This record gives sequence, structure tokens and C-alpha cells, in this order.
Amino acid sequence: MSESHFFPAIILVEPQMGENIGAAVRAMANFGLKDLRLIAPRDGWPNERAEAVSAGGLAHINAVNVYSTLAAAIADCQFVLATTARRRDMVKPVYTLSGAVRECHDRQAGGQKTAVLFGRERNGLENDEIAMTQGVINVPANPDFASINLAQTVLLMGYEWFQQADDRPGKFTEYGGGERASSEQLEQFLKRLDAELLEGGFFRSEGLRPTMKRNIANIFTRIDFTEQELNTLQGILSCLTGKRSTH
Amino acid sequence: MSESHFFPAIILVEPQMGENIGAAVRAMANFGLKDLRLIAPRDGWPNERAEAVSAGGLAHINAVNVYSTLAAAIADCQFVLATTARRRDMVKPVYTLSGAVRECHDRQAGGQKTAVLFGRERNGLENDEIAMTQGVINVPANPDFASINLAQTVLLMGYEWFQQADDRPGKFTEYGGGERASSEQLEQFLKRLDAELLEGGFFRSEGLRPTMKRNIANIFTRIDFTEQELNTLQGILSCLTGKRSTH
Repeated sequence: MSESHFFPAIILVEPQMGENIGAAVRAMANFGLKDLRLIAPRDGWPNERAEAVSAGGLAHINAVNVYSTLAAAIADCQFVLATTARRRDMVKPVYTLSGAVRECHDRQAGGQKTAVLFGRERNGLENDEIAMTQGVINVPANPDFASINLAQTVLLMGYEWFQQADDRPGKFTEYGGGERASSEQLEQFLKRLDAELLEGGFFRSEGLRPTMKRNIANIFTRIDFTEQELNTLQGILSCLTGKRSTH
Repeated sequence: MSESHFFPAIILVEPQMGENIGAAVRAMANFGLKDLRLIAPRDGWPNERAEAVSAGGLAHINAVNVYSTLAAAIADCQFVLATTARRRDMVKPVYTLSGAVRECHDRQAGGQKTAVLFGRERNGLENDEIAMTQGVINVPANPDFASINLAQTVLLMGYEWFQQADDRPGKFTEYGGGERASSEQLEQFLKRLDAELLEGGFFRSEGLRPTMKRNIANIFTRIDFTEQELNTLQGILSCLTGKRSTH
């Protein structure tokens, strides 16, 4: 299976400005998309402005292929979607961007070659072009201000593709190389703190002590200490109690 | 509850170029984020370049507030995250962008005011600034080409925010105003087709007929017809059989 089977082709239909092609290339490179196809780019290809704006991104994608027709550009693809901002009077599946990327992921995993069409900067895609696709993508956006440009749409598509392939957890805690403190180490600290507080007359009555102890334990348990941070806190405790005993 | 409780504040720390502020404004407007805060913008505020680049987006966000310190900018916020590309030698929760937005959504829904910090164009955020936040956001991207600029990061953040609030299904079929054909209408068409094929000698043997019928039914059942399309197909059938009978 060739590498191109691992990601959808990004197909720009009659792009006008080299800058926009370059920004699209950069966005693709940001998210590991490598198969760019151009249909009849107005200013030809290769294009100096595109190269400059890609900021080195061209080196991260495969050779850019240029076609004269949409039919030729999608000839090897089994599943093609079209990005469009307008509603069409057509019978078509409509995907959100994340829904579309999910479907492309599934189909690519099943060995199909997928592609996404991006229309002309000014006029988008024609209905005859949309009719050649299996569905359209509507990027969810503020209906009162939905002007998202070509390269930004490619950026959002690339982002969705990358993150749906990403198996990182949505949140994890980085301990900066240090070890997470164990419950036993935390318990030792809390015991020492309790003893110091008892000695210092912190608990105004024996009756209040259990609740106050629990509240204090709850503060420090939530902190998610590393061993080093707990050592720092032990040092703070020594310092503070040392101070108190010298006064 | 004020409107600002419905979305996180976008805080730009010492932004330099007005263009970048404008592009960030535009991205915010695209996705309905309205609370922009600037800390010591180099070229002051308001800024003509920012206004031009926002392409009308300024009208879609609230008044932009300017602060001289980070502490002042986040004073009313309960939960603050920092976008950062670099690893820090710090004990910090690290969120993916979607994980971060999920947490902000949850906290906003719980009545907390959240905020996300975006660093200087060249140097990002300082460790002392990161230490004032509850966690960092790492946008998942190609590690070999991860150069995503300020406004693009705001765009991705806005996109995530908007789509996580969006309750549209990931895929639905648009019937262009027409009615989805019923199974009964489809069945009538298939019966007629079968009769025409039988008459035309399509089924080479009676033994093969059930399998062929099933395969044909399967083709047309998958198409997800509207009533009008089914009528079109009935017309095609009449046309084709008419043709055949005249030859």
C-alpha cells in the first residue's frame, strides 16, 4: 500500500493566488497531509509566491500534481467530499468537518483513497463539480460571520485529521521529570503538619479537630505533588516552625 | 449571568503586530468568541491595521479590553490555560486543544469564567506567566513542522469551541426540499424493473434470477432516493423500454 493511502488528497480547484496555495501547503505540512493536487491553477505551477508563503512546508509534502480537469484529479479516488459554505439544492449527505474526517479516516483505514475538494477563492465550487462528489462538508461556524478562507479551511481540515489520528489523552499531567509522590509520602507530611499544628495550638477545640484535619488533608491531597515538591513543603514547614520556636 | 460567562476570554500577551491582533479578532468572530483581552500591545489599541485585517470581525466581538499586567487581565477568571509549543520543566496538566476546550466548556457550564493565554509572536509565554495558569495547551501537530502562528492557533481554538457546542449530527442527508422516498415506492419501482428485465430476457436462467434480483435491489436500495428521483428513474425506465420495443 503506497503512503498516499494514509491520508486524503487535498484538491484545490482553480486556485488563483499563489499565496493561498502556499498557505494551504503550510497548513498541510503542519498536520502531516502530503497529497496536494491542483486543478488548473491560474498562475501555473511551480509558483514562487506559493513557495515563499509555504515557509518551507513544500519540503514536507509529496510532489504537487497538476490536472486540467476534476475528473482526472479524482480518477484514483473512491470517496470524494466537497467543502462548501452555501446550501445546494441537491440530494447530498452533509458532513460537519469532524464527521467528514471520521468518515475519511474509516475509509482510508479500509483501503480506500479519499479526497477533499476546496473551491475557487471567490466562487467556490460549481454544482456540476459538487455532483461528482459523495458528499459536502459544512464547517461549523458563526452563521453571522462565516468568512473562512481557503488556507484556513485546509488548516481546520488538517487539524481534524491529525487530532483524530492522535492517541494522546485529552489531559495528562507532566511532572517535569520528577516522580509523582506516593500516598504514603503525602500521609507522612500530613501527619507531621497535624502534629505541628496541634503543638502550635491551631485546633481551638478537640471537637473541631477531625473536621479541620479533613479539610486540610483535602487541600493537600488535591495538589498532585511530585516528591520534590513535597520535600519543598517539608522544608517550608521546618522553616516556619523554626521561626515560631525562635520567637 | 453576563454573556461573557458563555465563552472563554482570549488573552493575547504583548502582541506585536496589529495584523495578528486583527486576524485573531476575525478568527474569534468566525466562531462566536467575544471576549478579547490584550496585555500591553506593542502598537497600542485601537489599531488601524488590526481593524483592517479583522475584515469587519471587530463588530462581532465585545469591546476589547487592554491591561498592563497578566494578573489584572485574569483577575476575574477562575480557570486559565496557556497555549505553548515548547515543553516546560514544570509540574502542569497538559491538555490537547480538544481536551482543553472540553474542560473550559464544563467549567463555563458550571459558572466559572475561563481564559486562554496566547504568547508573543516570537517568544511565546514566559515560565512565570505559565506558573499563573492551571495548565497548558499543546495543539497536536506534525512535530517536524509545527509552526502554527498566533491567529491560526486562535482559529483552531475557536473552531474547537464552536464545534463542541454544536449539536448538529456529524452527517445527515439533505434532500433539497424533496421527500425521502418510502420503502413501498422503492419496492414498486423494483417490481416494475424486475418485470421489464424478465420480459427483455435479462435473466439467463430461472435459477440465477433470485440472486440477480437481490443484487439489483441492493444497488437501488443503497441510493437513498427522494420521491422525485424515483420518478426520474421511472421515466428513464419508460424511455429505455420504449426504445427497446421500437427496435
